[in-house]
Amino acid sequence: MLSKSNIKRITGLHQKKYRKQEGLFVAEGIKVINELLESSCAPEAIYGIEDTSLHIPEENKNMFQKVTAAELKKISFLKTPQTALALFKIPKQVDDKRTGITLLLDDVRDPGNLGTIIRLCDWFGVTSLVCSSQTVDCYNPKVVQATMGSLSRITISYVDITAYLEEEKRPIYGTFMNGSNIYAATLPKEAVIVMGNEANGISDAIEQLITQKIAIPRFGQLQKTESLNVATATAICLSEFKRGCVTET
Amino acid sequence: MLSKSNIKRITGLHQKKYRKQEGLFVAEGIKVINELLESSCAPEAIYGIEDTSLHIPEENKNMFQKVTAAELKKISFLKTPQTALALFKIPKQVDDKRTGITLLLDDVRDPGNLGTIIRLCDWFGVTSLVCSSQTVDCYNPKVVQATMGSLSRITISYVDITAYLEEEKRPIYGTFMNGSNIYAATLPKEAVIVMGNEANGISDAIEQLITQKIAIPRFGQLQKTESLNVATATAICLSEFKRGCVTET
Repeated sequence: MLSKSNIKRITGLHQKKYRKQEGLFVAEGIKVINELLESSCAPEAIYGIEDTSLHIPEENKNMFQKVTAAELKKISFLKTPQTALALFKIPKQVDDKRTGITLLLDDVRDPGNLGTIIRLCDWFGVTSLVCSSQTVDCYNPKVVQATMGSLSRITISYVDITAYLEEEKRPIYGTFMNGSNIYAATLPKEAVIVMGNEANGISDAIEQLITQKIAIPRFGQLQKTESLNVATATAICLSEFKRGCVTET
Repeated sequence: MLSKSNIKRITGLHQKKYRKQEGLFVAEGIKVINELLESSCAPEAIYGIEDTSLHIPEENKNMFQKVTAAELKKISFLKTPQTALALFKIPKQVDDKRTGITLLLDDVRDPGNLGTIIRLCDWFGVTSLVCSSQTVDCYNPKVVQATMGSLSRITISYVDITAYLEEEKRPIYGTFMNGSNIYAATLPKEAVIVMGNEANGISDAIEQLITQKIAIPRFGQLQKTESLNVATATAICLSEFKRGCVTET
């Protein structure tokens, strides 16, 4: 049975403050939990209605606690709770490699967008994601769910992005309405790609550090669509940076 | 003042049944309403805290009704209501052109995904969107909000997609894990592109009608990401079909 204090501790992890304090985050659902268990993420506790579909490593078997659906409902942040919930230790991640493609987010605020962007990084083999400190926390439960397990395969760091970019030697790309056509550009294998905030795009301070302004051309006859969603714009940018690699390998 | 029966009628429009019965849909927020007012969409009623930021055509001025923030809250479906809400007549749309690029959706269920896809169509100049009858209703309030006004510029029809595709003469493209590399393909200017359901992809019955199976290559070393979100996959497909046009125009 789950104690009251335990329930309080777990539901507290829906808040960034307590995640930071405890160094833990919540994952829900068999699929997401299994993907995290297979990765280097260290579990702290696993709660489930049953454990037959969970791939719990031998050394972590003692972390499993059987709970009822009613108990799971108390600790879940989902409207329709899954059959399992687990706590994982937040990994200490620092990206200091600065090789290949790094995606950098300048204040992306929507958890669904960040989750989709993490999945896109995983798909396109971009293992380094650098976020401004104002970007939504990647251990926010909504982000964890939206990543569908991809979270465990990407190195995500929250840094002072101005300082990060000031020390950068690779070209720094950013999308702007008046940038040069991304489809006509020769894109390098080593670069930082900056994506901006949902409402305001790339901030003025960061724009000063962009070395290559690019644009995704707009085709509509009326030319009225004001912008693409940040996740779909990221999809198109990563696709363009990576498409050249396919014929070479 | 808003009458009780009027409030009931408007909130009823959050359900597809009543939208169909009344032939009306709800749009919220100055930006979305103004974009619809500028299009061929016919308004039926406009409620707002004030009318100074609304671009109401002279002949529709009498449709405006001033309401209080408290009244607006009663008819809004948003957690944080905007300052205006309007009812528009659902246009009768039939896509019988069958030219250029048509995007076809095989049971896309999430309103946010459909909204994002409609914005993508607008961006890429794809004016014809054909949906299976099980695809989420494009006049669902969440879809209307997510389209940010793009809704008024795309012809959207709900049809028996099997019958539609059986009569199709253009090549019919669909994305599959085992399809041929989209980056290496020569893509035509006239085609139907089929996108599948969030969980199940393209259905077996529709797969039989696909003439060209394509794939978006996956780059991650671990190759574990199971799929791209349907909206981001649509972004990449439309970008690939359209990118060739840029250098030609």
